[in-house]
Amino acid sequence: MRKTTLLFIPGFFIGIIFLILTSCQPSTPAKETESYNEEDARMIKMIFDEALENGKAYGWLEHLCVEIGPRLAGSENADKALDWTESLMKSENFDQVFRQEVMVPHWERGTKEKAQIVGSGEVLNVLALGGSIGTGSEGVQGEVIEVQSLDEVDELGEKVKGKIVFYNRALDQKHVSTGAGYGGAVDQRSGGAIRAGKYGAIGVVIRSVTSAFDDAPHTGMMNYEDGVEKIPAAALGFQSADKLAEALKKGPVELFLQMYCQWFPDAPSANVIGQLDGSEKPEEYIVVGGHIDSWDVGQGAHDDGAGCMHSVEALRILKAIGYQPRHSLRAVMFMNEENGVRGGKKYAEIAKGKNEKHILAIESDAGGFSPRGFGISGADESLDKLRSWLPLFPQNTISFINKGGGGVDVGPLYRETNTPMMGLGVDPQRMFDVHHSPNDVFSTVHRRELHLGAASLAAMIYLVDKYGL
Amino acid sequence: MRKTTLLFIPGFFIGIIFLILTSCQPSTPAKETESYNEEDARMIKMIFDEALENGKAYGWLEHLCVEIGPRLAGSENADKALDWTESLMKSENFDQVFRQEVMVPHWERGTKEKAQIVGSGEVLNVLALGGSIGTGSEGVQGEVIEVQSLDEVDELGEKVKGKIVFYNRALDQKHVSTGAGYGGAVDQRSGGAIRAGKYGAIGVVIRSVTSAFDDAPHTGMMNYEDGVEKIPAAALGFQSADKLAEALKKGPVELFLQMYCQWFPDAPSANVIGQLDGSEKPEEYIVVGGHIDSWDVGQGAHDDGAGCMHSVEALRILKAIGYQPRHSLRAVMFMNEENGVRGGKKYAEIAKGKNEKHILAIESDAGGFSPRGFGISGADESLDKLRSWLPLFPQNTISFINKGGGGVDVGPLYRETNTPMMGLGVDPQRMFDVHHSPNDVFSTVHRRELHLGAASLAAMIYLVDKYGL
Repeated sequence: MRKTTLLFIPGFFIGIIFLILTSCQPSTPAKETESYNEEDARMIKMIFDEALENGKAYGWLEHLCVEIGPRLAGSENADKALDWTESLMKSENFDQVFRQEVMVPHWERGTKEKAQIVGSGEVLNVLALGGSIGTGSEGVQGEVIEVQSLDEVDELGEKVKGKIVFYNRALDQKHVSTGAGYGGAVDQRSGGAIRAGKYGAIGVVIRSVTSAFDDAPHTGMMNYEDGVEKIPAAALGFQSADKLAEALKKGPVELFLQMYCQWFPDAPSANVIGQLDGSEKPEEYIVVGGHIDSWDVGQGAHDDGAGCMHSVEALRILKAIGYQPRHSLRAVMFMNEENGVRGGKKYAEIAKGKNEKHILAIESDAGGFSPRGFGISGADESLDKLRSWLPLFPQNTISFINKGGGGVDVGPLYRETNTPMMGLGVDPQRMFDVHHSPNDVFSTVHRRELHLGAASLAAMIYLVDKYGL
Repeated sequence: MRKTTLLFIPGFFIGIIFLILTSCQPSTPAKETESYNEEDARMIKMIFDEALENGKAYGWLEHLCVEIGPRLAGSENADKALDWTESLMKSENFDQVFRQEVMVPHWERGTKEKAQIVGSGEVLNVLALGGSIGTGSEGVQGEVIEVQSLDEVDELGEKVKGKIVFYNRALDQKHVSTGAGYGGAVDQRSGGAIRAGKYGAIGVVIRSVTSAFDDAPHTGMMNYEDGVEKIPAAALGFQSADKLAEALKKGPVELFLQMYCQWFPDAPSANVIGQLDGSEKPEEYIVVGGHIDSWDVGQGAHDDGAGCMHSVEALRILKAIGYQPRHSLRAVMFMNEENGVRGGKKYAEIAKGKNEKHILAIESDAGGFSPRGFGISGADESLDKLRSWLPLFPQNTISFINKGGGGVDVGPLYRETNTPMMGLGVDPQRMFDVHHSPNDVFSTVHRRELHLGAASLAAMIYLVDKYGL
């Protein structure tokens, strides 16, 4: 026994040494260079310490997700989220908190949809795509025709007439970045109804654009086109799509689809903006934002409650460590990213109208996961400078600066005013498991991961505020 | 309506462009250099494609965790895990699959422990620390004395006599790497009973060494010392530790602790090794391994079922893409990392006895999370070469090579034979939420993250096999 217990000690100590060595030793230690100095290293350490010890974003996000919930533009919850984020930034004593009023599209899902295989009676997990017309209570019913792409619909042409087109191409798992997989499959969701409508199809169902193999359906925006018949479109859960594909292998399948979604007149809404006033150039701005609207299922936790709370938290951290920004810093809760980008457009329109100078607009809309890097558009000449700052970020946080990137909400500002735009990149493995689905809920967000994202944003804002781009 | 729907399109397309740009464009594209060529880039792409499209580790890990379960050295489950991993590697047609017999310590928890505040009757969530003596059914009862460190016990000296010492120092959340936080708090677990025993304490409870704020207690190895009275030691859940600390603020607290754990004679066990024979230097080895034993609570999913399945999968992937290794490659399921390292020592003893040449021994024991980097000990002269390979790894996988690192199981080989040892570093935020607790279960493992870890290992093995260190 004695011998045994003594023998444990070496193993234990090696374990500790292993953990410490592999975890806190940066491969390139931060040192003074032309592009930053020791004060910057100290400030950035203070930023990360504040986030990890006293981070508030996680508690805030819980309120946004659990107490308020999903918040599609034009909904009552969206209004609540505006009121709450406004009061949040006031309670954090931001120098200014204000709104930019904007009219937003108003679409509602209505009573729960239904998709059922006629004959077998098998019920499939389904969600109407955002913006789709409904079917009324009578529903639509028709033979299902399976395709793998929009082009295949063109090839089939009139053969899809009177049928329900089933777009069955899955997200390609091969991409390390699930965003690339998403980008390669989402054309079925966005353009599927137009293509099928051209040839007289009566409805569209798609395999959800997801990296998970579960049965949660994933909604998201779809489009119609002038002059093309509008037909209802819905997403099936991954496993439900499997079931439908299996049934089709055995012979013709008739599907019944019932959706109560509908459009309403545009509704009044707003962006909410909190500002820390700049001490040297208060009329020049650095923006960090996310979108406060979400789809109407789940809780909009990663998409994009996380990005909104990241943004407020980034400014709170800078205030908490006593940093006096040179430029004015704005945390923007953009409204209506998901189905109209009216908030992003309004922000750009006002900035352009007032001739406000924006140094940089950063968006966080990739989820509340561990930060990995940034991507930037419109500042190619600054890439070397930005990359020279990488050693300042702790290991296991930011390790790359990509050329290209930004965000949907800051896109209008980028295009209208030539403001460089930047996007926060986070570990991409889990986002498209939950994105736009009932599973995008607070319980899937990790406290430390969320706070590290906010710290990464605060550190980048600090550096750009101090050194420019 | 028409206008509205048309307006969505730009936003949608920006979204796609954003996602693609930020996700798949590496900051430093892999290009031919002196240290690798285009064939390597192709091979490593094949490795990652195989892992993401056809990865088997996730399904295997489900079996190990759910069908077999936790597997402390000397237990029936540990034997089952040996049998199953042996048959697994045979079914994958590895060239050789064999065992290295080794005697292991055998400790059992027995009937569920109990910790209760006398008087209020409040029950605290508790787990005996691994290796602790039990209390028998009569338990121990005594006044609780709270300390923050081992040194504080020295200061208190005889004042702890007859009392239960409560080590209450929490893991420091400030470290970006939770491993560093763990390393800074775990001395209470490993050395707390010795220090308190020296001064006549009758028992020890510690605040679990965890990054989570939940109430799952976290076990792990503790030690005794010759000549010091052995006293029972247990870990409280984080919230239970809060409760005890709260109670102590109000006045003296008497705690009742009952533990049925006990030691048994050493038991026969083994390492299981699967080998792909080398085509050029079959008598030289590259090892990749994890430990097949786990603590007896939870399912040993991240610690270290993940590392074992990583190792088997890394070799499976290399086989699947048709790679012919120059050296022999071994996936080693080390036995008894948690409470004795007998498997790691046996492996080193045999390697030394046979004068086997090992090029490199890699361990994966940091969890099945997204890969981030590697750390290496014993090959300082190779750091530049290893770092020159980084552009070959896809963005959002491996981004650093640290000096220092390795693993508990490959430590003996490193020390006994001067074999360089390497550790896989993964995103560190979630590991110490679940480590050694009932929450280290399969459902916390993410399929793609696990498979990317295996691919990262396979890619490193490929490069070292081809180019050496």
